[in-house]
Amino acid sequence: MTSSTFSNLARGAREASLSLAIKTRADKDGALHAMADSLLAHEDAILSANSEDMERSRAAGVGEALLDRLQLDSSRLEAMALGLRSLASLSDPVGEVIRGWQLPNGVHVDQVRVPMGVIGIIYEARPNVTADAAGICIKSGNSVLLRGSSTAVSSNQAIVVALKQGLSDACLDPRAIALVEGDRSVTDEMMAARGLVDVLIPRGGASLIDAVVRGAQVPVLETGSGNCHLYVDASADQKIAIDIMINAKTQRPSVCNALETLVVDSSIANEFLPQAIMALTDHGVTIRGDQRARIIDPNLLEVEEWDHEHLSLDIRVAIVDGIEKAIDFIRSHTSGHSETIISSDAAHQKKFVNDIDCACVFVNASSRFADGEQFGFGAEIGISTQKLHARGPMGLSEMTTTKYVLTGDGQVR
Amino acid sequence: MTSSTFSNLARGAREASLSLAIKTRADKDGALHAMADSLLAHEDAILSANSEDMERSRAAGVGEALLDRLQLDSSRLEAMALGLRSLASLSDPVGEVIRGWQLPNGVHVDQVRVPMGVIGIIYEARPNVTADAAGICIKSGNSVLLRGSSTAVSSNQAIVVALKQGLSDACLDPRAIALVEGDRSVTDEMMAARGLVDVLIPRGGASLIDAVVRGAQVPVLETGSGNCHLYVDASADQKIAIDIMINAKTQRPSVCNALETLVVDSSIANEFLPQAIMALTDHGVTIRGDQRARIIDPNLLEVEEWDHEHLSLDIRVAIVDGIEKAIDFIRSHTSGHSETIISSDAAHQKKFVNDIDCACVFVNASSRFADGEQFGFGAEIGISTQKLHARGPMGLSEMTTTKYVLTGDGQVR
Repeated sequence: MTSSTFSNLARGAREASLSLAIKTRADKDGALHAMADSLLAHEDAILSANSEDMERSRAAGVGEALLDRLQLDSSRLEAMALGLRSLASLSDPVGEVIRGWQLPNGVHVDQVRVPMGVIGIIYEARPNVTADAAGICIKSGNSVLLRGSSTAVSSNQAIVVALKQGLSDACLDPRAIALVEGDRSVTDEMMAARGLVDVLIPRGGASLIDAVVRGAQVPVLETGSGNCHLYVDASADQKIAIDIMINAKTQRPSVCNALETLVVDSSIANEFLPQAIMALTDHGVTIRGDQRARIIDPNLLEVEEWDHEHLSLDIRVAIVDGIEKAIDFIRSHTSGHSETIISSDAAHQKKFVNDIDCACVFVNASSRFADGEQFGFGAEIGISTQKLHARGPMGLSEMTTTKYVLTGDGQVR
Repeated sequence: MTSSTFSNLARGAREASLSLAIKTRADKDGALHAMADSLLAHEDAILSANSEDMERSRAAGVGEALLDRLQLDSSRLEAMALGLRSLASLSDPVGEVIRGWQLPNGVHVDQVRVPMGVIGIIYEARPNVTADAAGICIKSGNSVLLRGSSTAVSSNQAIVVALKQGLSDACLDPRAIALVEGDRSVTDEMMAARGLVDVLIPRGGASLIDAVVRGAQVPVLETGSGNCHLYVDASADQKIAIDIMINAKTQRPSVCNALETLVVDSSIANEFLPQAIMALTDHGVTIRGDQRARIIDPNLLEVEEWDHEHLSLDIRVAIVDGIEKAIDFIRSHTSGHSETIISSDAAHQKKFVNDIDCACVFVNASSRFADGEQFGFGAEIGISTQKLHARGPMGLSEMTTTKYVLTGDGQVR
C-alpha cells in the first residue's frame, strides 16, 4: 500500500462516515445482519485464506498458542456472525440526549451523542477482531480502518471482502470498512493522520500499545494491561477471600482482569496464608512470596518483580502491616486496571475505594467482573486504563462523541 | 530548570494530588478563598513583578495588544481574586455518581467522578490565566503544573508564590500548584511526561496548540480555533438573521465563537445581502465576497482564503445554491467549533443539525453563546474542538475522569 493509497482509503472512510452518521438504527442493524450473512456465504474463501495464513505461520515457526488464535473454522466463523447479529440487538447510542437545559434567555441546549467519524483499530493476530471491531464501529455509526497483523493478512482480506459485501447488500457505503495493508510505514502514516482518523485504538500486547501511544499524533484510546491486586484486610471474611482469590486467579488466567498479586494484612497472615496457599496449589498455581510470606511458608519461591502481568497460573504474595501500607503497596505497582479489597470494615472499604486510583475498584467481588459483557454493555472494544474519554470497559457509547445543539428564536448576547 | 527539577516538581504535584483528591468540598472552597486572600495580600509583590515583565517586554518591542494582555493593576488583581471566590460557589464535580446499576448476581456498580490527578497547562502571556487555571484545577481536586510564557515569568512567579501560600494557609499541600520554568526543553519534557502528567491543556494561539498536539505523548485536550459560519437559509427570518449576524460578528470579534463567514442562499441573496452589507458596514466591518456576492455588490473586496479566523472586524461572504451546497461549503471550511443556521424550515434545521459535525450547532441563535459561562458552567478552562473526552465548552466536570466502584458480598464469575 502506498501513501496515496492510505489517504484514499481514509478519505473514502471519511466520506462514508458522513452518510453512516445519520443512518437509522434499523439501517445499521440491517447492515449487521447482512454482514453476518455475507461472512457465512464467504465461508470457503475465508477458511481457505486462513489456511494460507496458518501454513505461512507454521513455516515461519510461529508458536502453538499464536497459531490457535490465528486459526478459523466453521464454528469460529459462525461465532463471528453471531457476534454481529447480537450487536444488532443492542440499543443505538447515536442520538441519545445526555442532558438538556434552557439558558435564562430561552435558548434550549441539548448535548447529543454522535459518532466519532473514522476509527482506526491496530491489532494483532486474531482474525475474529476484524469482524468484531468492524461491527462495533458500524453499530455506533463510525467508519473503521482496520490495521491487522501481517500474520493474518489473507484471512483479514477475505473477511473484509465479505463485510464490505454485506454493507453493499444493505445499501450502505462499503468504504465504511477498509483494511489497511502494507509495511510498517503505513502504520506510521495512520498514526499521523490527524483530520483523517478521529481516534486510534490499539488492541494487543503491551509493546504494540506502547508504540501506538508514543508514536501517534491522532488521539488514542489506550487499552492497557492489568497488574491486578487483591488485598485481604484484617476484617475480611476469609472464606470469601479464598473464593474470590481462586476465581480471579484461575477462572481465566490469560486475561487482563485476572489476579496477579495477593496482598495480605500481617495480623491475619499466619492464619490466612496457609489456607490460601493450599487452595492455590490445589488449582495448580505457582506461588512466589516476599520475605515475610516465605517465613510463613519456606516452600514459596522468591518474588523477582512486582510490576508485570503473569497472564498464567502464577501469583505473587506480599504481606503488609495494615490498610495504609496495602494502599501504598498497590499504588506503587498498579497498572490502573482493577484492584480489590476483601473487608468487612466499612471504613476500610471506603478508604480503599477513595485512595486507589484505577478504572475499577472492587469490594468483596471478583475482578473478573471488569468486563463489558459482565457490565451489561453487550459489546466491548477493550478496557481503557487511561483517564481521558473512557476509563474501564468500553462499549458502544464510548465509540461516540457529543455535539451541543442550541435552538433559539433570535437570541443574541 | 533542569530536567531533574521538572520531574521533582511533577512528582511533588502527583503526591499532593493523592491527598487533594479526597478533600471535601469545604476544604477546597476554603483553599480557594485563602488563595484569593493571599493574592490580595501579595499585591505589591505581584504588581512590582508585573512591572518588570512590562519593562522587559517594552524594551523587546512587544506590541500594544500583547502589552495590554500582560499588564496587571489593582482592579485586574481584584478580578482574579473574585474569580477564585466564585469558583468556591460552584458545586463540586468530584464524587458525583454518573450512573449506577446492579449486575444480575447482585454486584452493585457505580460510575463515580474522580479527579484526573495532575493537569498540565501550557499557555501564553495573560498572567490572569495563572490564577484562573490553578483555581479550576484545585476546585476539581487536581494538582496543576503551570507552564506560562517567558514574557510573563516574573508575574507568574509572584502569583504562584501567593497561590501556594493560600494553599498552605488552608492546610492543603502547596505542591499542588507549581510553575514550570526554564527553556524550551522543559516544555518538551512536560509533553513527554507520561505517568507524571495525566493531561495537557494548551491555551493560546493556533501555533502553540498545534505544537502541543503534535509533540505530546501525554494525552491532550485541544482547545481550538473557531472558523465559524452563519448560513442564512431561503426560509430565514431576515430580521433575525441580521441581528444574529451583527451580534456574532461584532459583539466581541477577537474570540473563537465570533462569526467569520456569512453563507447566503442564492434565492434570497439579492434581497438579503444588501441589507446585511449595510448593517455590517454600519458596524465598521470589512467585507470580502465570492464572485457572486461581488456581482451583487461590486464594492466588496475579493476573498483570499476561507479557512482562517479573522479575530477582527472582517467577514467573508459566500453565496450557495440551497442547503445541500451550504452544508458542503461549511464542511470544507469548518474548524469544528460553532456553526449556525438561520431558518424557519424545520426540515432544513434538522438537516443542518445532523449533517454539520462540530462542537456546537446553533439554530436561530448567536454562536456567541458557545461559552462556559453562558452555558451555566460557572467556569471554563477553554472550548474543546476535539472529539475525545470533551467537546465544546469545558467546565469543572471536564477536568475529572471516572472510576467504577463494584461492591458485592463474595460474588465470583
